[in-house]
Amino acid sequence: MPIYKAPVDDAVFLLDDVLDFNGYGQLPGFGDLTVDMLSQILGEAAKLFEEVTLPLNQIGDRAGCVRLDDASVTTPPGFKAAYKSLADGGWIGLSIPTEYGGQGLPYTLTVLINEFATSANMSLAMYSGLTQGAMAALLRHGDERQKRIFIPRMASGVWAGTMNLTEPQCGTDLGLLTTRAAPRPDGSYAITGQKIFISSGEHDLAENIIHLVLARIEGAPAGVKGISLFIVPKFNLNGDGSLGSRNNVSCGSIEHKMGIHANSTCVMNYDDATGFLVGEANRGLNAMFVMMNEARLGVAVQGLSISEIAYQNAAQYARERLQGRSLSGPKYPAQSADPIIVHPDIRRMLLEIRSFNEAARGLALSAALDSDVAHRSSDPTARQAAEDRLGLLTPVLKGMLTDVGFENAVKAMQVFGGHGYIGEWGMEQFVRDARIAMIYEGANGIQALDLVGRKLPKDGGRAAMAWFKEISAFIAANGENEPLKPFVQGLQSALGDLQKATAWLMQNALAKPDNAGAASYDYMHLFGRVALGYMWARIAKAALAGAQRDPASARAMEAKLIAGRFFVERMLPETAFRLARIVSGADTMMSLDAEMF
Amino acid sequence: MPIYKAPVDDAVFLLDDVLDFNGYGQLPGFGDLTVDMLSQILGEAAKLFEEVTLPLNQIGDRAGCVRLDDASVTTPPGFKAAYKSLADGGWIGLSIPTEYGGQGLPYTLTVLINEFATSANMSLAMYSGLTQGAMAALLRHGDERQKRIFIPRMASGVWAGTMNLTEPQCGTDLGLLTTRAAPRPDGSYAITGQKIFISSGEHDLAENIIHLVLARIEGAPAGVKGISLFIVPKFNLNGDGSLGSRNNVSCGSIEHKMGIHANSTCVMNYDDATGFLVGEANRGLNAMFVMMNEARLGVAVQGLSISEIAYQNAAQYARERLQGRSLSGPKYPAQSADPIIVHPDIRRMLLEIRSFNEAARGLALSAALDSDVAHRSSDPTARQAAEDRLGLLTPVLKGMLTDVGFENAVKAMQVFGGHGYIGEWGMEQFVRDARIAMIYEGANGIQALDLVGRKLPKDGGRAAMAWFKEISAFIAANGENEPLKPFVQGLQSALGDLQKATAWLMQNALAKPDNAGAASYDYMHLFGRVALGYMWARIAKAALAGAQRDPASARAMEAKLIAGRFFVERMLPETAFRLARIVSGADTMMSLDAEMF
Repeated sequence: MPIYKAPVDDAVFLLDDVLDFNGYGQLPGFGDLTVDMLSQILGEAAKLFEEVTLPLNQIGDRAGCVRLDDASVTTPPGFKAAYKSLADGGWIGLSIPTEYGGQGLPYTLTVLINEFATSANMSLAMYSGLTQGAMAALLRHGDERQKRIFIPRMASGVWAGTMNLTEPQCGTDLGLLTTRAAPRPDGSYAITGQKIFISSGEHDLAENIIHLVLARIEGAPAGVKGISLFIVPKFNLNGDGSLGSRNNVSCGSIEHKMGIHANSTCVMNYDDATGFLVGEANRGLNAMFVMMNEARLGVAVQGLSISEIAYQNAAQYARERLQGRSLSGPKYPAQSADPIIVHPDIRRMLLEIRSFNEAARGLALSAALDSDVAHRSSDPTARQAAEDRLGLLTPVLKGMLTDVGFENAVKAMQVFGGHGYIGEWGMEQFVRDARIAMIYEGANGIQALDLVGRKLPKDGGRAAMAWFKEISAFIAANGENEPLKPFVQGLQSALGDLQKATAWLMQNALAKPDNAGAASYDYMHLFGRVALGYMWARIAKAALAGAQRDPASARAMEAKLIAGRFFVERMLPETAFRLARIVSGADTMMSLDAEMF
Repeated sequence: MPIYKAPVDDAVFLLDDVLDFNGYGQLPGFGDLTVDMLSQILGEAAKLFEEVTLPLNQIGDRAGCVRLDDASVTTPPGFKAAYKSLADGGWIGLSIPTEYGGQGLPYTLTVLINEFATSANMSLAMYSGLTQGAMAALLRHGDERQKRIFIPRMASGVWAGTMNLTEPQCGTDLGLLTTRAAPRPDGSYAITGQKIFISSGEHDLAENIIHLVLARIEGAPAGVKGISLFIVPKFNLNGDGSLGSRNNVSCGSIEHKMGIHANSTCVMNYDDATGFLVGEANRGLNAMFVMMNEARLGVAVQGLSISEIAYQNAAQYARERLQGRSLSGPKYPAQSADPIIVHPDIRRMLLEIRSFNEAARGLALSAALDSDVAHRSSDPTARQAAEDRLGLLTPVLKGMLTDVGFENAVKAMQVFGGHGYIGEWGMEQFVRDARIAMIYEGANGIQALDLVGRKLPKDGGRAAMAWFKEISAFIAANGENEPLKPFVQGLQSALGDLQKATAWLMQNALAKPDNAGAASYDYMHLFGRVALGYMWARIAKAALAGAQRDPASARAMEAKLIAGRFFVERMLPETAFRLARIVSGADTMMSLDAEMF
């Protein structure tokens, strides 16, 4: 069975030493939170995931979810009790405002805890993750009554939530959706249609499931401007809020998937189900986008989660597996062979993963802090800056963290040789589970288009320019710091590639939008590499300072500096390759007739 | 269910127009084979795979193999009849000399037919593939009696074969193997030990299974110099060659794997099983290496096979799935949406796969032709040149074709969006099946070490120098050909990067072998990119000539040129990135203490 130890120390280092967590003390929910408390909270969460949910991960993969003849769905053995522990610990509603039954703590904490939860058991973590996504949409777009009724019971985990967007004929292109909402005299709507790929769509972990459903009110305009958002509870509510009759929504079947077997991915059938409008009619897509942005950061973190647990297991295996001898002569002559960690190519694989994980965690936390500022700060300038940066980086993080997270799971599996391919070791499950994150919440190609087509040009390029300026300022301020020089120089060169690519897009995409589409995927990854490089430069700066301040930490800080140098030497030069691909343009790929593919 | 059409036309184009198949007419088995006959043979094979084995691929994945209480193993429904068709068609022994019951046709044909067979049904193709590997070892190292007894019945498919190397404590490092062989008075040996990960180890497709087993004769030297190769038949043979008693070898269990579910991967227990020495005592590793080299090319082709079928399905889906609108305005305004093939990023994914497949097929066929020359030519100079090139390129092809083949399966799955993650579409099976090819027959990191540590320095670098010279000569001869210029220039730049990397290795690896290990994986992929670039330049030259010669082929030839230009513009520049990684050396990765990983 795979091992896992939540990276609490690394998270605290990133928050405290790199991201200036104390500097956020003026925000609601942050004030009383000392770094010691943070450590303690994360440690508590870690215990739950390491001891309770991790041991269920392989069990869940094998057992899967089962749909019974009455259309109910049972989760794998142990999931119910584990979910109750998660709920009772207050982890689901950790960042929900106290007036709606949550603990009002930073969203940043939820992001971290979800990282741990997903490493330990991705399928299980998705039940609470979807509930959090649904709460986010209700918090921003529900009316006060809806919030009071639904959020507290979702925050406590007694009820769960889902997001219902996709239909057989429409995934990316929501303008094609056909689920209908017919107004009833009592103000409710009768919802009819079929939704597919609904994660956590039906299960036995909660007393009620609150479905957020996109549908088209009769007579609404065609396309995305005629879509509204509805609450459709699995059980109707009585006047006093208690559970009433069963609503006409049911699970038609469970999909047979490559991975995340323990999360029920459902076909959901709505047949004159009772629904309630959330927010304004025909503005459902906007409401859903709020939920999706948060969900996209959540999915990005899933990529990191799997990459982290895959790394931990590969590193342990590499230290223990005896096979062959070091190229520079036996390192453990008394043993029958050396542990494979003596081999450079094994270290290459491990360091490729690790040098991603630590910086990716920093980026996810930085984005989460931006989200906290955007939602909680009283300073409109700070809010806008945070919103800008978050909006810009969300597609980058979703696309890059899930792509690379998957690649890293594949790499970690490779360290195990043949054993990696065998189910009992658990490594191949990570690959299968991680694969979905590149697809859902907008396939990564859509993230790339969102970056290039919307986020980059938005507000005259304000967000991108501010971010480039921020990095340039860091380079200017730290260029003379001798031990930081390799980091700063690598970053400067990578930023140069990104700026060249951006200039190329400005010159070539307006006249010919296909050039933007052809460049988008590489641009997203180029952007992401620069973001990781920038984060590594900040981590290195903090590690150098930390080692000076506290000699006891010197060894841990040195390890970070090595991982960072590895990143600068081996991962960052990819930016030039991405740039070369980008400037090759769209002409060649567009010149092949569709029927000749 | 996935579609598949064997790429017969492309294969014939490669053999005839690019690789000068007619020029091999003096080799035994090639003489009577006109291009028309080639086409016809391939067409016959294609029918079998498209109509008979392809429909069993998903069935096999779901049903898997089942081990019964008597230790027998049943294959999925339909496999027995399909395997019989394969055997009866003469496809298993196609390239086996006629005196041992084969058809004596070129090995090159077998490589191609195995590509088709694996695309259609990788698990099923592995039963015959292992049999072919075992026959290859017996042909080269068995004595005449062994050849006469075993090969004809294996060539006809009545008997099957396996390779037994791995043990729980030894995969890569065969020096650690402990299976014992005790000499008996009658000249046979009693084999005792446990082997794991034995593909096709036990099944119901053949009347007998001939296991080739590595074991250590009592008193043999320790390490790899004390390993011998044995024949251990599942059923002992009577004096007249008929099947006798059951030998003491049995399947202890079947592994639960990520993919290739329909191939039985067995733990094989040998308990005083009767075995017969093949070749000289203590020289088993050499014999096995012959088998492994051929097997490595076979595994390389598996990567291509999955990439090909994944491409075909993704291209079809992209032409049919309606979603969103072209960035440059609706292309099919009468439909609710455009097919997703209008999107540059979809085309990018498809062309990344396709521009690999066509050149990778050319490389596999070129290596197969080298193998035919090496084994069949009467000209020692030609034999040596072919052996050199084949030895050099075998690890490159195994490593690159399986790595990229897997990545391409992942990419093709991505084209399907959420549907790609669902089992019924079949795309996720390709990913799971393709994953093993990066691991078995020497994990790809081992291929990289084989290239850098053995093949490159062998004979004073003769093979590599000859290959570089061959490419340089092509560049010199075609540099002034105007329409070929982009190909030649791209190739020249890529070759320059490879030569720089090679020079760096020569300067830095001798004094510090870890530098070779640290560079090896990137060097293998850099080498592979240059090989693909060279093949594309040759394909482009042939396509330009073909279009001139036969205007009816102009459209197909133009499609090849587009795919080739895409490769040069977007895939070939990776060489500079690989070079940058290589020259960063081993110091950083070796500086982290093992316990700090």
